[in-house]
Amino acid sequence: MPISEYAIVSEKAIIGNNVSIGQFTTIYDNVTIEDDTVIEGYCELGVANDLSQSEHLVIGKNSLIRSHSIFYEGSTFGRNLVTGHRVTVREKTIAGDNFQIGTLSDIQGHCTIGDYVRTHSNVHIGQHSKIGNFVWIFPYVVLTNDPHPPSEVMQGVVVEDFVVIATMSVILPGAVISEGCLIGAHSSISGKTTKDTIYSGSPAKKVGPTSKLKLKDGTRKPAYPWRKHFHRGYPESVVDSWCREEY
Amino acid sequence: MPISEYAIVSEKAIIGNNVSIGQFTTIYDNVTIEDDTVIEGYCELGVANDLSQSEHLVIGKNSLIRSHSIFYEGSTFGRNLVTGHRVTVREKTIAGDNFQIGTLSDIQGHCTIGDYVRTHSNVHIGQHSKIGNFVWIFPYVVLTNDPHPPSEVMQGVVVEDFVVIATMSVILPGAVISEGCLIGAHSSISGKTTKDTIYSGSPAKKVGPTSKLKLKDGTRKPAYPWRKHFHRGYPESVVDSWCREEY
Amino acid sequence: MPISEYAIVSEKAIIGNNVSIGQFTTIYDNVTIEDDTVIEGYCELGVANDLSQSEHLVIGKNSLIRSHSIFYEGSTFGRNLVTGHRVTVREKTIAGDNFQIGTLSDIQGHCTIGDYVRTHSNVHIGQHSKIGNFVWIFPYVVLTNDPHPPSEVMQGVVVEDFVVIATMSVILPGAVISEGCLIGAHSSISGKTTKDTIYSGSPAKKVGPTSKLKLKDGTRKPAYPWRKHFHRGYPESVVDSWCREEY
Repeated sequence: MPISEYAIVSEKAIIGNNVSIGQFTTIYDNVTIEDDTVIEGYCELGVANDLSQSEHLVIGKNSLIRSHSIFYEGSTFGRNLVTGHRVTVREKTIAGDNFQIGTLSDIQGHCTIGDYVRTHSNVHIGQHSKIGNFVWIFPYVVLTNDPHPPSEVMQGVVVEDFVVIATMSVILPGAVISEGCLIGAHSSISGKTTKDTIYSGSPAKKVGPTSKLKLKDGTRKPAYPWRKHFHRGYPESVVDSWCREEY
Repeated sequence: MPISEYAIVSEKAIIGNNVSIGQFTTIYDNVTIEDDTVIEGYCELGVANDLSQSEHLVIGKNSLIRSHSIFYEGSTFGRNLVTGHRVTVREKTIAGDNFQIGTLSDIQGHCTIGDYVRTHSNVHIGQHSKIGNFVWIFPYVVLTNDPHPPSEVMQGVVVEDFVVIATMSVILPGAVISEGCLIGAHSSISGKTTKDTIYSGSPAKKVGPTSKLKLKDGTRKPAYPWRKHFHRGYPESVVDSWCREEY
Repeated sequence: MPISEYAIVSEKAIIGNNVSIGQFTTIYDNVTIEDDTVIEGYCELGVANDLSQSEHLVIGKNSLIRSHSIFYEGSTFGRNLVTGHRVTVREKTIAGDNFQIGTLSDIQGHCTIGDYVRTHSNVHIGQHSKIGNFVWIFPYVVLTNDPHPPSEVMQGVVVEDFVVIATMSVILPGAVISEGCLIGAHSSISGKTTKDTIYSGSPAKKVGPTSKLKLKDGTRKPAYPWRKHFHRGYPESVVDSWCREEY
């Protein structure tokens, strides 16, 4: 499909080569869609609000936005963005390359996201979050920001490279999740953390080094750092660097 | 935009002056939309079911319903309703003025909601909930109602004025959250509570008076009652009364 | 309504007798909709992906799919499927008769589901889950599958007949929830369980037999097994067998 006859596309939008736009999708004025990108049906791209200041929404080259998704103007995504269905992404979200956003996830904007970040379904990224590279966030996780809601104080969370946050955890305002940490399912966590460490519970306690978890695939090799064994979807150059890395 | 050429609007619906209706929105028969209201695209207003008894959905004056939202017939909203995207609101929801509903929130109907209530994203309001005025409910909070599911016994929760329920908490059936209470993030709470008190944990325990929490803005003033310092979006007359109030 | 003039229906799709299809709905190629079924508006049925192998999506006789729902090709549903709004169901979901899926629920596919299963709103069914018959799953429950995410090891959960999982619980990878168990709200549970037993907490502990919970309807009869008192929506033949059953 190129551009569906049932899509509504503003003449002001900048649409690259080899872009397809699905049925019942609306592309508003301040939108740039780079080459080789697929926008499925029932989407809205470039929704305006008071905070988006008419800045363009930029969707990088070779991206796939699945159906029923909503993106505001004023956000920027690198190459190879892939979304599930019904994602909502507000203004001033600045993301790197290869970002994957799961179905129903809700990104509140005013946040920065590195390269190769993956959220599973129904993840909520609060404003002022700073997320590094190669981070995994699993279903029903919420990144918060207000230490005493409601207030005008915003303490966004920091999630460093290679962090894994498991299902239905809450990252409390101002928390810093250090490189390589694993936050167990159904946890709530605040404060600073130690690198490559497991935290679990509500409130979360330090459980031990991530290296103590063994793979349940019969090998009993360490399950973390996960980059030593999990390579699906990463380019060869990245995987090679991980394999050469001493740990 | 007035009424989009791509909207489907029943001739039986009652549409006020200066109402706009977005692309691909459907307005069914039993709907009253008051003046100066914006209904964005991809919405359905006035969905019928067995329990709605063909009563009108009434959307009060000067409201904004964001895109992809679904409202059943048989519910009534005061002035200045504002919703996020993809909200679902079933029949017999009776809400006051200035209600704000966050993206993805799911209001199950058969409930009452006061004035100036605000839910953040992805809040679930079970049937038979009674919510007062100036209440704040944060993401992924669920208000339940069945003490031994599944059953025909419905014990809706009561949430009194100025209550704050933080992220990912469950309010168990029959709970009464008293005026000014703060329920901490990732808690579950049942039973009666004491006014202006913090409860936290799962099951939640009494932590102390809300007044012991200090603002993290450098002033070290009390963070609660929040109405002493947080005024964004409230009219001057309301804020004035809060400031004059002794506490 | 039969087939809306605003629907897009592939000529390759197999549409039974007395089927209605709502406005702005898309039916793709590999779809079979059996007789007497209602597909509401804004739905997509038969979405293809790499894993669906062009197999048909089969929606059984006398079903109701509410608006804004998305079903992939390659899944099969028995008779009397009923969904809420905005459900997402991926490929290789094999479900029996009388399945009810709540609003916003997200079924990840590659799973099996028995007869008379009911999920409430916003339930997440991970891949490789095996769900028996007459199971109830309440809002914001997540069934997981990866014991050390991210990895290639998938340990789907097993949920046996008559199980009840209450609001906002996480079923951890490889857990087996035995027949008649009740998992309390806001719990996380792993491992094996004992039949007809209550588990609650995070991590969940054994609380006692389900039979110790009494109905709060004035009768003080046992609340479990729920099939002794809760019959709404089940056919007479099923209810008769439950009433004759000794327990």
